[in-house]
Amino acid sequence: EAGGRVCVRAKTLTMETLNPQVKAVEYAVRGPIVIKAGEIERILQEGGKKPFTEVIKANIGDAHAMGQQPITFLRQVVALCTFPELLDSPSFPEDAKRRAQRILQGCGGRSLGSYSASQGVDCIRQDIAAYIEQRDQGVPSNWENIFLTTGASDGIVSILRLLVSGEGRARTGVMIPIPQYPLYSAAIAELGAVQVNYYLDEDNCWALDVHELHRAYQAAKQHCQPRVLCIINPGNPTGQVQSKKCIEDVLHFAYEENLFVMADEVYQENVYAPDCEFHSFKKVLYEMGPEYFNSVELASFHSTSKGYTGECGFRGGFMEIVNLDPEVKAQLVKLLSVRLCPPVAGQAAMDVIVNPPQPDEPSFAQFHKEKASVLGALADKAKLTEQILSAVPGIKCNPVQGAMYAFPQIFIPPRAVEEAKALGMQPDMLYCLRLLEETGICVVPGSGFGQREGTYHFRMTILPSPEKLKVLLEKVRDFHIKFLKENSALEEPQCRVQA
Amino acid sequence: EAGGRVCVRAKTLTMETLNPQVKAVEYAVRGPIVIKAGEIERILQEGGKKPFTEVIKANIGDAHAMGQQPITFLRQVVALCTFPELLDSPSFPEDAKRRAQRILQGCGGRSLGSYSASQGVDCIRQDIAAYIEQRDQGVPSNWENIFLTTGASDGIVSILRLLVSGEGRARTGVMIPIPQYPLYSAAIAELGAVQVNYYLDEDNCWALDVHELHRAYQAAKQHCQPRVLCIINPGNPTGQVQSKKCIEDVLHFAYEENLFVMADEVYQENVYAPDCEFHSFKKVLYEMGPEYFNSVELASFHSTSKGYTGECGFRGGFMEIVNLDPEVKAQLVKLLSVRLCPPVAGQAAMDVIVNPPQPDEPSFAQFHKEKASVLGALADKAKLTEQILSAVPGIKCNPVQGAMYAFPQIFIPPRAVEEAKALGMQPDMLYCLRLLEETGICVVPGSGFGQREGTYHFRMTILPSPEKLKVLLEKVRDFHIKFLKENSALEEPQCRVQA
Repeated sequence: EAGGRVCVRAKTLTMETLNPQVKAVEYAVRGPIVIKAGEIERILQEGGKKPFTEVIKANIGDAHAMGQQPITFLRQVVALCTFPELLDSPSFPEDAKRRAQRILQGCGGRSLGSYSASQGVDCIRQDIAAYIEQRDQGVPSNWENIFLTTGASDGIVSILRLLVSGEGRARTGVMIPIPQYPLYSAAIAELGAVQVNYYLDEDNCWALDVHELHRAYQAAKQHCQPRVLCIINPGNPTGQVQSKKCIEDVLHFAYEENLFVMADEVYQENVYAPDCEFHSFKKVLYEMGPEYFNSVELASFHSTSKGYTGECGFRGGFMEIVNLDPEVKAQLVKLLSVRLCPPVAGQAAMDVIVNPPQPDEPSFAQFHKEKASVLGALADKAKLTEQILSAVPGIKCNPVQGAMYAFPQIFIPPRAVEEAKALGMQPDMLYCLRLLEETGICVVPGSGFGQREGTYHFRMTILPSPEKLKVLLEKVRDFHIKFLKENSALEEPQCRVQA
Repeated sequence: EAGGRVCVRAKTLTMETLNPQVKAVEYAVRGPIVIKAGEIERILQEGGKKPFTEVIKANIGDAHAMGQQPITFLRQVVALCTFPELLDSPSFPEDAKRRAQRILQGCGGRSLGSYSASQGVDCIRQDIAAYIEQRDQGVPSNWENIFLTTGASDGIVSILRLLVSGEGRARTGVMIPIPQYPLYSAAIAELGAVQVNYYLDEDNCWALDVHELHRAYQAAKQHCQPRVLCIINPGNPTGQVQSKKCIEDVLHFAYEENLFVMADEVYQENVYAPDCEFHSFKKVLYEMGPEYFNSVELASFHSTSKGYTGECGFRGGFMEIVNLDPEVKAQLVKLLSVRLCPPVAGQAAMDVIVNPPQPDEPSFAQFHKEKASVLGALADKAKLTEQILSAVPGIKCNPVQGAMYAFPQIFIPPRAVEEAKALGMQPDMLYCLRLLEETGICVVPGSGFGQREGTYHFRMTILPSPEKLKVLLEKVRDFHIKFLKENSALEEPQCRVQA
């Protein structure tokens, strides 16, 4: 080749030579529909005409982008850590200064600009452990089992990375809910693990039925080695909150089948339904007695991005890992050390969440007011969303008990299904594209999260302001009715009930 | 098993079931020697006795931890972005406020707490492209080829991830310098690619000789498909700065052999030797003419962590990618979108570096003074380090032309080599452990970076304050002489010259 080469040098990296595991990754939350939304936004900015004046992005749980204001105390602490000269400023409250000073003392050279330990700043890990003990009413938490992360996603992928091994039938199977948050399917594809689906029960408020876990496990055993059970509670995209009994059943199953449990609990502060309560997997495990608490391997994930803070951009998060083999833990530390450390400003933000102002501190009243305002508004919007969507013929929406999404089932007339097929497109993708083009509303097709064959959904966030959300929901309603008419549904529009 | 199970539940995740690619990862910069240093620090804190009063961590390029002060303007801008109420404060300069306002306008909801696009904030990408054009004296840079990253490491691993494919002899080979920064070997192990070593010429100031590239390439072709060529310039751990001629040779080689070039240029601001100058791979490629500039696939990496800012904790960085196949670029965006976005505060820090105060702006004088002070001190320390180490019998230290490390060769007497072997340890690991235990100085054994068989080195940073660095170097000298005596070197201590 080096001898008689022609002028055109072939590319080294093409779709043919690209890592096939990268090719297999899908991530609908920022997928084609969102790229299309960006294009439409640009057209509008450049003065182009559309039947609407703005694109409303209800595709991603990005609270501040939808107008939610930051929690003042959190930003004060992070600003003080960033620019410590402000510690002398009378316009910052003393409790914020105390927090900042404590965090800076945990940083090399008292600077946010130093690398932290790969597991995170020690005193922040200690604050997190104290927070967990309080949250779980005294269940012990050891700060040496706490790892700060770059958002929850980073922690989830790190743990999955440890767990993937074996070839052929011995390859690691990872059990994930369907519908799921597509980080899971993406990470499984990237790592070349085997995705094992268990279906949530849509007819029963997206509850997790342990019989379905058994079914999925037994079926998977034929072709892989299921070793991991992922749970998202409160649910994303499905918004359900698991009962204590359900968590017990799941943990008993994991115990029996020797599964490593990954509990995605990033929405632990986001519970709205009055009859629901957040129970951490760790606490329930503890209450099942020492035989369980001392043996089931469990990783739990939390984040600055959700809750009442919505600080996505800081990429803060943590994981607590219990019953991890000590040698494996050393391997995890080694693996994390290659990326040096999670962003320290994000660690500081996490610290504020686990160590908020106390009743005797100057910032308490404002902090509480801001927190209650965010969570109250989310609860109202959860209800509003369910109410409006449920009343639409051909839409079925479970209650949004928690998290920040609705995942309504939509009836798509056979004619539209045929049309989508002809276009080589999922029917709910066709639906969401039409919705975007006609109304400017950007939601994500259910096919990006997984759903029972023959059912169709979309995920939307409940994050827009109440006024905007109402408009959005009414536009969805009007669009849906029009869509049904245009595709002249001969049969009565009816969502499928599950077999 | 579920029937007659006994009480002890086996762990799911053990050293036997751990991902073997994780097991294969090594990362000496935070390896056993650093863990040991942490233990000794704790002993000292608890009042324990050691022949020294403090541990000096010269193992990692962590400037602020070694006492370097942050650049005021950078921190002002990030603090303003974090807590925008400060935009009304008279104690912040107008140019910092303008930067902050511009960055916030690029953020959803004008908040650092929103996710950015996966590639980063548009206006920051534009600033980076403008900076590159200026740095490269007019060579065009397209902002759509700029990707913000979570430190440079994240970008490097993302690009490597794309490039790994094939099985057996078709498996991707990644050419890396020896000695190398161990992120590369770690990422190659984690991704299951094939590491292809090319050796830098220690006798020639760690220069890269293109004949050695040819040798390594031809040898590797027997068992893998070399597709990637990684370059670190200025060098880590070796501190050399490549000449323009050398870069041309390398690019010509990459062109001929169809290699994807990854240029780790995070030390581009850290050039100290008066006869050296930083040349970006991109600029040199441009000057080689359109046949090269329009075809060689090149990714270049930069970071907030090094240079004169040393902002490691913010995890800021970017990469510029040229000649990437457009479909592959879409795949890269998809892959990055799974992790949502790099930390936005780190993106803001990066923006300050590429868009510093201009001569007509109020912060210019202070900014320049601070920058010159950091870089001037580093240049002095680079010289001091070489001078003191070179004068030690049995130590050979190349000039520290750039970056922030010395990588001296140390003569280890055969008796100590034998002792290390008996302990199942690399000889330079034994040396560094003794150095740590006797002096409190923490440096990293050369074996963690790779070195020619039979030669031994360590890497130390030049980051301690001048006073502390002098003490450190003198302690190293005294230790080395004592070490030679104790191991009664019968032969004249002499570093090996290369074959």
